[in-house]
Amino acid sequence: MMKNISLLGATGSIGVNVLEVVRKFPERFTVCAMAAGNNVELLARQALEFEPEILSVASEEKARELQSLLPVRFRDKITFGEKGNILVAAFSDTDITVTAIVGSVGLLPTLAAIDAGKNIGLANKETLVMAGKIVMDRVNEKDVRLLPIDSEHSAIFQALEAGRKKDVEKIILTASGGPFLGKSSDELQMVTRDQALNHPNWSMGKKISIDSATLMNKGLEVIEAKWLFDVDAETIDVVVHPQSIVHSLVEYQDGSVLAQMGIPDMRIPIAYALSYPERMVLELPSLKLSQCASLEFLEPDYKTFPALQLAFDALETGGVVPAVLNAANEVAVEAFLGQRISFSEIIRTVARTMDIVHAGSEDNLEHILQADTIARIEACKMIDAIAKV
Amino acid sequence: MMKNISLLGATGSIGVNVLEVVRKFPERFTVCAMAAGNNVELLARQALEFEPEILSVASEEKARELQSLLPVRFRDKITFGEKGNILVAAFSDTDITVTAIVGSVGLLPTLAAIDAGKNIGLANKETLVMAGKIVMDRVNEKDVRLLPIDSEHSAIFQALEAGRKKDVEKIILTASGGPFLGKSSDELQMVTRDQALNHPNWSMGKKISIDSATLMNKGLEVIEAKWLFDVDAETIDVVVHPQSIVHSLVEYQDGSVLAQMGIPDMRIPIAYALSYPERMVLELPSLKLSQCASLEFLEPDYKTFPALQLAFDALETGGVVPAVLNAANEVAVEAFLGQRISFSEIIRTVARTMDIVHAGSEDNLEHILQADTIARIEACKMIDAIAKV
Repeated sequence: MMKNISLLGATGSIGVNVLEVVRKFPERFTVCAMAAGNNVELLARQALEFEPEILSVASEEKARELQSLLPVRFRDKITFGEKGNILVAAFSDTDITVTAIVGSVGLLPTLAAIDAGKNIGLANKETLVMAGKIVMDRVNEKDVRLLPIDSEHSAIFQALEAGRKKDVEKIILTASGGPFLGKSSDELQMVTRDQALNHPNWSMGKKISIDSATLMNKGLEVIEAKWLFDVDAETIDVVVHPQSIVHSLVEYQDGSVLAQMGIPDMRIPIAYALSYPERMVLELPSLKLSQCASLEFLEPDYKTFPALQLAFDALETGGVVPAVLNAANEVAVEAFLGQRISFSEIIRTVARTMDIVHAGSEDNLEHILQADTIARIEACKMIDAIAKV
Repeated sequence: MMKNISLLGATGSIGVNVLEVVRKFPERFTVCAMAAGNNVELLARQALEFEPEILSVASEEKARELQSLLPVRFRDKITFGEKGNILVAAFSDTDITVTAIVGSVGLLPTLAAIDAGKNIGLANKETLVMAGKIVMDRVNEKDVRLLPIDSEHSAIFQALEAGRKKDVEKIILTASGGPFLGKSSDELQMVTRDQALNHPNWSMGKKISIDSATLMNKGLEVIEAKWLFDVDAETIDVVVHPQSIVHSLVEYQDGSVLAQMGIPDMRIPIAYALSYPERMVLELPSLKLSQCASLEFLEPDYKTFPALQLAFDALETGGVVPAVLNAANEVAVEAFLGQRISFSEIIRTVARTMDIVHAGSEDNLEHILQADTIARIEACKMIDAIAKV
């Protein structure tokens, strides 16, 4: 049976991998709707190859640019902005909406897709970080499937298939440790943008690369895991595993630990989300354990990398605080990428913003969106006060 | 719901662990029937604690000895020999028969239990090595469950729960490598009985300790896996993993590898077989990955440890050859334990016996039992010719 895919974030790192999977299995998948940000050249090429029914880009200007790059048959199929993302996410023919878009802009389109009864391939962790309670309530209400595409959450999802939910003792997220594993707080003061972008194992977008370097990525994943798998924060552990071969683990109450492993290639979790419960023949290189380096596991260094503890704190406080953590982090990472603040100032900015902004309920979408906005304003103010440029 | 257990091999390493699990969950399990070999003192103590309805030992003499150690209420409950094992295995009240008995003597009682409609907790690998086809046909015909208790097969059984049988690409058995990992063929000439018995990770009986040192244990497990999981020999791989933390793995066709891990404690697979599909709270120490040594994986050294290739050969030839391999190995290990032959002569004896004895069908129990007998005679002859004593 052919599955129709709506793809948010088509030109990003995950989006491009989604399209590679679709390209490999043309008899199983079509892409009926695509959205991207500003990379209209790539989106135009993708549109010519996949012939979606609807396309969306960041702005009206970019929409005109896309128009000019495409034949006339696409003229009435191009839209833009948040409205465009929502139209793509909830497109009528869609069977599964893949949210490969980065940041808080993923939230409203994902909610729209759920409301329209679409299954979700979730690669936008901010959706659950910001509004996990609201999203999961709607997922349950609409009885749609929320299939994780993050390699860690896909691993946990798979390891959970080997047991019963009520027998779960721990969910153990692995973290590569990022490019600065083993560094001291002092050494972190000195690191550059390029060093932070240079992830040892995964090739990813800029935002997530920086989040991996601060370990905020793992913090966001902890919050995501809490909602996705309906567990308490105390049930979630993080272990540093520099080789990124074991993608995550589930410990059951009998002491059995089920792990999903594999080469670090996003096409594996993407394909699993698209074909679940089947598994397709991806023809990727096999994981040859005897050719791997030894697999190491270390406790995270919570002191040198305070982002992880901050995320656990946000989860414990609840309410709008996880959304505040996420918003401040987005602003601070952008400032770091713009070389306005140092690496260590990213997480300091997040912590201070969480001190200032915390009022509101996790059940109220308006509170969450407001907190997101206020957190951004506060984080910007702090950055302006310390910024070099 | 209370489960009644028949336990073959009550006084052995696995049997004692089975009873520990039962002791921990008296509201879930009773032991209604027990068999042992010659250790009547221990069996008597176990009988007083668990009050089975029937007891069996190796011989009439041992039965009298057991009688003398127990109160009069046990008088009519004591039997012996192969008949005794069969009575225990197929005891009327039994829900699950645990075959924790070592060697080919496990076969007929296991078949009797299956014929009587009992689920099997399989810790006797020889049953499937000798007569895998016949056993699995009867398991399917009687629609009973065959739950593996070997840690490797339990791991695979669990990893298979996370996917669909038809998506399986490889079943990967881990091997500790035994006490002689890394040694050369020349060095193996010199090793002593005590060195061979000294397994680095697991505390086990003598026969299986020697089989671990030759890697024949892994060879037997390969054959066992073929039947238990209904796969071809080409689907089965062996990887050496000296830390014995990853108990085995399943690779699916999408490149995902599911592994079951845990501390090396047989109570975990035993409890899982007894409570499946539930998992009980065993209160064992957690696997703390960050406190483990690095996990290493190596290709097996097929040249220095020829037992493994011999087992794959036996599987490929089929017929009665796996039973011959097993019988010759039992005889040769006994001769080694009696210090009659050297370590290297164990597998040489097995290989030569396989050259001589190979006629018969895997579908015919009589052929298999005959081949078992002839192989023992031939192996004994060879050993007598070379033996020191």
